Amino acid sequence: MRERDLLAHIYQRSANDRHASVAVGPGDDCAVLRIGGAQVLVTTDQLVEGRHYHSEDEPELVARKAMARAISDIAAMAGRPTAAVVAATLPPGLTNGAALVDRLRESAQHFDTPLVGGDVASSTTDAPVVITATILGSPHPQRGPVLRSTARVGDAVWVTGELGGAWSSAPNDRHSKQHTFVPRVAEAWSLADELGAELRSMIDLSDGLGVDAARIATASGVRIELDAAALPVSPRLAGEWRRALSDGEDYELAFTADAGDDVRVALDRVAERLGVAITRVGRVTAGEGCVVHTPDGETLGADDLGWEHG
Amino acid sequence: MRERDLLAHIYQRSANDRHASVAVGPGDDCAVLRIGGAQVLVTTDQLVEGRHYHSEDEPELVARKAMARAISDIAAMAGRPTAAVVAATLPPGLTNGAALVDRLRESAQHFDTPLVGGDVASSTTDAPVVITATILGSPHPQRGPVLRSTARVGDAVWVTGELGGAWSSAPNDRHSKQHTFVPRVAEAWSLADELGAELRSMIDLSDGLGVDAARIATASGVRIELDAAALPVSPRLAGEWRRALSDGEDYELAFTADAGDDVRVALDRVAERLGVAITRVGRVTAGEGCVVHTPDGETLGADDLGWEHG
Repeated sequence: MRERDLLAHIYQRSANDRHASVAVGPGDDCAVLRIGGAQVLVTTDQLVEGRHYHSEDEPELVARKAMARAISDIAAMAGRPTAAVVAATLPPGLTNGAALVDRLRESAQHFDTPLVGGDVASSTTDAPVVITATILGSPHPQRGPVLRSTARVGDAVWVTGELGGAWSSAPNDRHSKQHTFVPRVAEAWSLADELGAELRSMIDLSDGLGVDAARIATASGVRIELDAAALPVSPRLAGEWRRALSDGEDYELAFTADAGDDVRVALDRVAERLGVAITRVGRVTAGEGCVVHTPDGETLGADDLGWEHG
Repeated sequence: MRERDLLAHIYQRSANDRHASVAVGPGDDCAVLRIGGAQVLVTTDQLVEGRHYHSEDEPELVARKAMARAISDIAAMAGRPTAAVVAATLPPGLTNGAALVDRLRESAQHFDTPLVGGDVASSTTDAPVVITATILGSPHPQRGPVLRSTARVGDAVWVTGELGGAWSSAPNDRHSKQHTFVPRVAEAWSLADELGAELRSMIDLSDGLGVDAARIATASGVRIELDAAALPVSPRLAGEWRRALSDGEDYELAFTADAGDDVRVALDRVAERLGVAITRVGRVTAGEGCVVHTPDGETLGADDLGWEHG
């Protein structure tokens, strides 16, 4: 069984659980709870040694990535992080545990997300280090949480920043985007400020725009059509638009919004104020899944491009 | 380095972090956050295969324990659980992952704590399964969160239930308390209802009354004196009071409260209504640490009894 199949199993089984305190259950970037009259966002994310980072990576880089990945899920809802709790399984003797925990705390502070609790446990000798970061946050007070499931036919599709080439095969690569990215909290908050209800749906890009746009499509019951020629391909990739669709770990925002001119003007304002590219890359149509119109005029789906289905 | 030394390192380093959204930071059973005008409790806890449960234990027992342990931390603050998120690292191929996740969801429902999110990741072949449960909750609206750090000299010390003998060395022992205990959420809530501000401090017993009472003493800057003859020793232990102090996994409540007669009467009411024993086992005095007065008239400290220090 693959991880995403198991997650899909969880979402499906949970769909019938109804509880007054749960506004949004499993399956979006965060769950949304009602606690004491407030809305609370919560998300949890694991970082596994040798898989999500190189064993040789320094604790500072590992800690930063653990915090930033989870905070990116809060950004994807247009929320702000409030606090973090972290659990870590470490080698016997907790080798490097104090350094890792200190770096986690520093990273949390760097992202203005105080580390308020945690747990450490020793594992077996050959087991990988696993860091589980859980972040609590608040949604934008006027717009409320921005979901994956609320894209509408007729929306335009936009992305922040550049796509592809984030993962570096070199350990301790302090210039690779996987270690330097800043979760798009400020950008998402400004989108909610400026667009309000015209900001329809959003996700953060962890598995590549192709897979993640398909997640919006599936959750919203729509089709997303992307234009390969419009993609803001990272300069590292020399125009390889396929990798801009399939590379993971971008941690940019993809969102759909009303296609009107007022939205375009508002997005120009956000882009200029925050110094971030915001690029229109496609549209929402009736149907299902995510397809790509190539520069040659072909239309390709996930099967053609070898992605996993969203 | 031992786990509790690393945790102490975390608490110490975090003591100077001040943040408007953090009412109570690391070091108590839960952190207490301020989110959108509400107070939110959060705690995280790891269950490691082969250490916190037997590898042969069935998923149902493992899932139940993972949820119950974390919810017990919410009870220790006199809170109610709102929702859970769970992360799991599983063997390659995610063997038994779906069964475990289903059982986690059922356990969460059983404890009226909906499972609203999670993450699964495959680990290496020989690595233990690790389940990280994070629970969010609400404090009692009138009493507020009950901390470890607010015991006062003159308080009496009480415990719920019976102590010792919870851990079973037999796998799949469905009668062992480690698999059958119900977190004392209802009892703690009733204590907050009945005693209000006279309920001074509280903790749940995970590492034995000796160690956990010393945690209250240290956090509050007081001494706790226990009477061995007063301990509600589990019938399984045939009067071995030392084990009632040192065995872990009781998941009972230990609390301090005003020593007046009105408290005693109120506790009788709670005990009768909920069908739980509530036993006075000691008192809070000036000084530090936890000591035990033995039936022979000796006074023993943690060093004499071989506990770890709280």
